[in-house]
Amino acid sequence: MPKISNKGKQMPESPIRKLAPFAEIAKKKGHKVYHLNIGQPDIKTPEIAINAIKNINLSILEYSHSAGNESYRRKLSEFYKKQHVAVDFEDMIITTGGSEALLFALGTIMDQGDEIIIPEPFYANYSAFSTASGGSVIPVISTIETGFALPAISEFEKLITPKTKAILICNPGNPTGYLYSKDEMMQLAALVKKYDIFLIADEVYREFIYDGDTHYSVMNIPGLEEHVIMVDSVSKRYSMCGARIGCLVSKNKEVMATAMKFAQARLSPPTVEQIACEAAIDTPDSYFEEVISEYKGRRDTLIAELNKIEGVIVIKPKAAFYCIAQLPVDNTDKFAQWLLESYDFNGETVMVAPAAGFYSTPGMGLNQVRIAYVLNKEDLIRSVQILKEAIKVYNSI
Amino acid sequence: MPKISNKGKQMPESPIRKLAPFAEIAKKKGHKVYHLNIGQPDIKTPEIAINAIKNINLSILEYSHSAGNESYRRKLSEFYKKQHVAVDFEDMIITTGGSEALLFALGTIMDQGDEIIIPEPFYANYSAFSTASGGSVIPVISTIETGFALPAISEFEKLITPKTKAILICNPGNPTGYLYSKDEMMQLAALVKKYDIFLIADEVYREFIYDGDTHYSVMNIPGLEEHVIMVDSVSKRYSMCGARIGCLVSKNKEVMATAMKFAQARLSPPTVEQIACEAAIDTPDSYFEEVISEYKGRRDTLIAELNKIEGVIVIKPKAAFYCIAQLPVDNTDKFAQWLLESYDFNGETVMVAPAAGFYSTPGMGLNQVRIAYVLNKEDLIRSVQILKEAIKVYNSI
Repeated sequence: MPKISNKGKQMPESPIRKLAPFAEIAKKKGHKVYHLNIGQPDIKTPEIAINAIKNINLSILEYSHSAGNESYRRKLSEFYKKQHVAVDFEDMIITTGGSEALLFALGTIMDQGDEIIIPEPFYANYSAFSTASGGSVIPVISTIETGFALPAISEFEKLITPKTKAILICNPGNPTGYLYSKDEMMQLAALVKKYDIFLIADEVYREFIYDGDTHYSVMNIPGLEEHVIMVDSVSKRYSMCGARIGCLVSKNKEVMATAMKFAQARLSPPTVEQIACEAAIDTPDSYFEEVISEYKGRRDTLIAELNKIEGVIVIKPKAAFYCIAQLPVDNTDKFAQWLLESYDFNGETVMVAPAAGFYSTPGMGLNQVRIAYVLNKEDLIRSVQILKEAIKVYNSI
Repeated sequence: MPKISNKGKQMPESPIRKLAPFAEIAKKKGHKVYHLNIGQPDIKTPEIAINAIKNINLSILEYSHSAGNESYRRKLSEFYKKQHVAVDFEDMIITTGGSEALLFALGTIMDQGDEIIIPEPFYANYSAFSTASGGSVIPVISTIETGFALPAISEFEKLITPKTKAILICNPGNPTGYLYSKDEMMQLAALVKKYDIFLIADEVYREFIYDGDTHYSVMNIPGLEEHVIMVDSVSKRYSMCGARIGCLVSKNKEVMATAMKFAQARLSPPTVEQIACEAAIDTPDSYFEEVISEYKGRRDTLIAELNKIEGVIVIKPKAAFYCIAQLPVDNTDKFAQWLLESYDFNGETVMVAPAAGFYSTPGMGLNQVRIAYVLNKEDLIRSVQILKEAIKVYNSI
């Protein structure tokens, strides 16, 4: 039998997907499963985007430009400018989701054996994309006690080698819900300048910020134009995860010219979905106000409920729609599987994402879970109630 | 300034894109440019697919399954079965275009320094995808005199090393229009079995076969289930290039499980376009009959006209909608650029794809061009007339 690649063997499996067969078991038993594990919002896509799809006026579904439709890029640059983020349409390549933007970014800067440093816990697919690019992730630990604030710069410096090509952050953070301050961003800026490496910021949750905080985009750091690569996506902004439209943004011309070669090789991002995304830019502010208010309410509800469980440690996230909670159980991989396979509370159970999958340091996050607050408040209250009862039962067996 | 990757530096630029700035020059001069250079058909997308988009009934544009919607995969497997190609829905992963299927296939089997052997001339992006996967393409030369038939198996064997992971063919061929016979496929089958390597077949032009020939799919080779990976796409079948929907097909469970890790990392293929593709499977046979008849007519016209030019060598292609023509000029890179930059025939000129970009052996294909017959017959006749006049002028300066 012919051999598959080492790269293929090393590609990590999604920590959430591993649980999927057990969710099937729960469903086969007729149990209702509350999904606290996923990043698929239940928020409606703006009507203006859906209508653009319904009103599509094409007789041939042609390739678009490899960098994406120019009309979309121009409108997107206006969108950023309104947010006080200085991005020209020539600074961006429209990608097939934020995922492809990450792949292009890592392909552009990483060779076999190269490294990128990422504060952990981090979005599990960063590891997959690094592996696909022949490189690896070097984690720097952030802790639940600080709410997953930026680790000390000295901790990053200990890990920098000649193979280090970039520092990658997710801001706001998935899975942490942490929002880096301007001061933290400036510390990172000084660091990447000092070592002349890239700073990649995944800003796909940039809209989801609560309590009057503001998002400080990596694109706004003065004097860092050559070092910065931003990744963005419409997936969460407009609840258009299935559109698979993202973008790669940089002022570094060499980065953009190189990423463009990757973009040309795959021809173009999807045509219909780009049209929907262009229309979505005219989504009224009231849409976001409602969405943010809804998420803020869910967050407050979730955190209040979680804090009622003895032994739970959770810090109220500032942004995005995730939190990491430490549970009074021995091992959340086992616990999450048990919840689906063996537990129900009046015919209902919950699915959570064990946090070990968001760490690359072995042994980290073993008693933590990621909870996505993408359910309505009533369901969140019910879910945490189930979780509370389940912890009692789990710890008594 | 931080450094980009060697991989990024090595990524080849598309041979056609290099000419794009010169096409702009021609257009700025007010010249009409006939595009013989591109693979974007002018054929209408089936109405049934466009209507599926217009009638979309979604309020949230959600992620689909990472392997694509199961309903689409099941229907697609029925489509293949009608074509006597035995593919189950579990043997496929829906990808973002045939491009992503190629990337998944190469990522699954290639590590840094690995090689794949491809008969040249070949679709230029195969090089790009190999580079992105850390490997490289080893070409085996096929010749215009044989119409680009399969090179002797002994020529392949000379190139096989422990680093050889696969043989990749495009069948029917872009840019050659060649259709491999069952006998040629059997020769390849014996070869990959002997050396226990993969056989990857890009079959995206499988529908475009003229003169009563039949396509012998790589999936139908008996006993080769573990060695075969097929790449397909809706781009040409339904003139839906912009949908970016393709698929990766294999009966090898390890290949599929590994490719699935790449698929999960990028989450899912586009949702709306998958719905359109599922609907497209019900496209009536009459659509294909018309399209094939149209292309056959175009091919016959093109070849007849090209043969009227003294010094042109071209063999009538059996399939797809391309041919490679040898022109009586010194260098088609220079000639193609000159056509756009400096030539016009009554205000009109043509854009062709210099064939050197489809070879990886330096110096090959220098007097060849790829012509795509994706224009109507009248325009094809006019284009070749311009080409004929242009060759005269070019050779007299």
